[in-house]
Amino acid sequence: MDGSAPGCRVLGLCGSLRRASINRALLHAAAIVMPDPTRFTVHEDLGSLPLFNADLVVAPDSPVAELWRSVTTADAIVIASPEYAHGITGVLKNALDWLVGLPEFYGKQVAVLNASARASHADAALREVLSTMGARLVEEASITLPLTGVPADSAAILADPHRRAALNSAMAALARGAGT
Amino acid sequence: MDGSAPGCRVLGLCGSLRRASINRALLHAAAIVMPDPTRFTVHEDLGSLPLFNADLVVAPDSPVAELWRSVTTADAIVIASPEYAHGITGVLKNALDWLVGLPEFYGKQVAVLNASARASHADAALREVLSTMGARLVEEASITLPLTGVPADSAAILADPHRRAALNSAMAALARGAGT
Repeated sequence: MDGSAPGCRVLGLCGSLRRASINRALLHAAAIVMPDPTRFTVHEDLGSLPLFNADLVVAPDSPVAELWRSVTTADAIVIASPEYAHGITGVLKNALDWLVGLPEFYGKQVAVLNASARASHADAALREVLSTMGARLVEEASITLPLTGVPADSAAILADPHRRAALNSAMAALARGAGT
Repeated sequence: MDGSAPGCRVLGLCGSLRRASINRALLHAAAIVMPDPTRFTVHEDLGSLPLFNADLVVAPDSPVAELWRSVTTADAIVIASPEYAHGITGVLKNALDWLVGLPEFYGKQVAVLNASARASHADAALREVLSTMGARLVEEASITLPLTGVPADSAAILADPHRRAALNSAMAALARGAGT
């Protein structure tokens, strides 16, 4: 018994579209150490979202509707994102703008992973935005894991036993919370 | 003599894509009261930018290259944007992400217009981002002009003589600065 609920689902959102994104690799590493039977899926399609426009009619087969479905069915969300010019990336903020007012986002448990100890501005801004959107930030699962110089690869991230243990603890805390 | 330089160019960037955007209307109002002979152009194409991806190769005829040219040829920039969930809009941040590292942005004079006295989080975050990008914030031209309840129309914005005078003073300050 690790305390996680059976069939619990976690959705990963990455704030970078780069192929060699350390933040996407971090999400995949988090998926690996997530305790069973929680299912962790990384949303790979934030790049196909249109730029937010309140005038736009969202079709049921659109990437926006797909994001809404993924968020709705998730028990918790993990966000990992770089900081661009001391701010949240436009890619991530655009995805969040599409989630503002989605009833199922309200009260959702969210963990924020930070891959750089220096990226404090975007981290603070992201927390402010998430709180405003009604998310429940899971502090025990929101950790800074400095990855400067580490290859953008989940195996490389998990090769360090301290990092692996820290990430495992964070994800276990999230799974426990999401099951409650 | 109003002190503005001949042929000075100002570029307006709007953080909302809504047709009835009060911020776009504010930029058009600013263009109207901008002292001659400064030319004020509102960039109407931020919605066609791709989401920022450092891996993407920018073609010369792409909306990104067009934005770079508009910024490069501008002597100053005016930004007006709503706040979404206490943050910079994804639309605006995405445009700024494409400008990070553009040599011509560095040292550019930028004014931030704020159409809501309550939108302090995004305003502060935007100033932090712009400073990090090397912009020179023109404080005299960066004013808050509360427009809650005002129709999204430049004529409606300028119908109030106090608002018109405040916006005119701000734009005159920007034109003077851009000419130096």
